[in-house]
Amino acid sequence: MSDRIEQQLAFLREAEMLKSVTRATPIHDASRPENSAEHSWSLALYALTLADQAEPGVDITRVIKMLLLHDLVEIDVGDVPIHSQEGSAHGSAEIAAQEAAAAERIFGLLPEDQRAEFHALWAEFEAAETPSARFAKSLDRAQPVLLNHQSGGGSWIDYDVHWDQLQSRVGDKIALGAPGLWPVIRARISAWFEARGLI
Amino acid sequence: MSDRIEQQLAFLREAEMLKSVTRATPIHDASRPENSAEHSWSLALYALTLADQAEPGVDITRVIKMLLLHDLVEIDVGDVPIHSQEGSAHGSAEIAAQEAAAAERIFGLLPEDQRAEFHALWAEFEAAETPSARFAKSLDRAQPVLLNHQSGGGSWIDYDVHWDQLQSRVGDKIALGAPGLWPVIRARISAWFEARGLI
Ligand SMILES: [Ca+2]
Repeated sequence: MSDRIEQQLAFLREAEMLKSVTRATPIHDASRPENSAEHSWSLALYALTLADQAEPGVDITRVIKMLLLHDLVEIDVGDVPIHSQEGSAHGSAEIAAQEAAAAERIFGLLPEDQRAEFHALWAEFEAAETPSARFAKSLDRAQPVLLNHQSGGGSWIDYDVHWDQLQSRVGDKIALGAPGLWPVIRARISAWFEARGLI
Repeated sequence: MSDRIEQQLAFLREAEMLKSVTRATPIHDASRPENSAEHSWSLALYALTLADQAEPGVDITRVIKMLLLHDLVEIDVGDVPIHSQEGSAHGSAEIAAQEAAAAERIFGLLPEDQRAEFHALWAEFEAAETPSARFAKSLDRAQPVLLNHQSGGGSWIDYDVHWDQLQSRVGDKIALGAPGLWPVIRARISAWFEARGLI
């Protein structure tokens, strides 16, 4: 038991590093970049609050667990912004291999049973095949959109994002796991793109 | 349904502000103060990871929900550091009244059923009477201790904290909800206090 708790505390100590991983999205008042730890908190709160947007078969507790864990690999790899390199870097085979190695290392700090459980939750999220993982992925796409809108444009400005890019990189993916959510977000944000001639 | 999701999104938009509430505890490398949003993520991860430290009757999903929500009142009130004013400000009647008003306002943004549910989770956490709330409170005390230790002293230095103060303000409270956790933490941190003649 003593070894077990020491392993758990070693994992939690390592996880603290996620607070130093910065993202392309600024926080609400554009005062600084969001970090991946507070982003993960936002997503868990999204899952709790928007649970009635989930499709049948979604287990919200499982979604929350995935979202708490999903970005830990960024401690080694960093966040790969969705709009960087014209959208090509995100999800590349090279990044995927680095993230897989990071998952081995970081979840490897845990006792064996939890190592397997947490690694499986992360892999399920990445594969985006189960209803729960698809819903989690949709929230991971939705929150940065609403946060960019809240801060006045955020990473849309930095990466010169046009409406059709937002639709294909983000909107279509939100719609996959949360079909009722994307139309509401679209209605809210399209004026921002229209006003700038980006639609 | 359309009103419902608009209310949910208004709540989530407001919640973003928690990222600007700073705490007395610095992050792992002492580079900046921790904020209450990323702190809430840490605590949810603590609950997930240290679930086997919970007493019988604890519902870990409920604990995670409480921890995701417990600090939202700080958007209006700010964080009251546990070691500030010789430990007297934290939990004062005045602060409690301000937090109650903040809970009314912030959870009041939600649809009625969720307003009641989230408010009840927050109130349960504050009352610290159920096994789940006691475990959640213990984690809320434990994480800053381990984070201070990780960063080299943190708010213990700023508030000139001696061992007997840490024991009464923090240790006794961790032991209430997670009796197996406090001895492990104590063994880990006592050398820091001994080396500085604070024990
Ligand atoms: Ca990410």
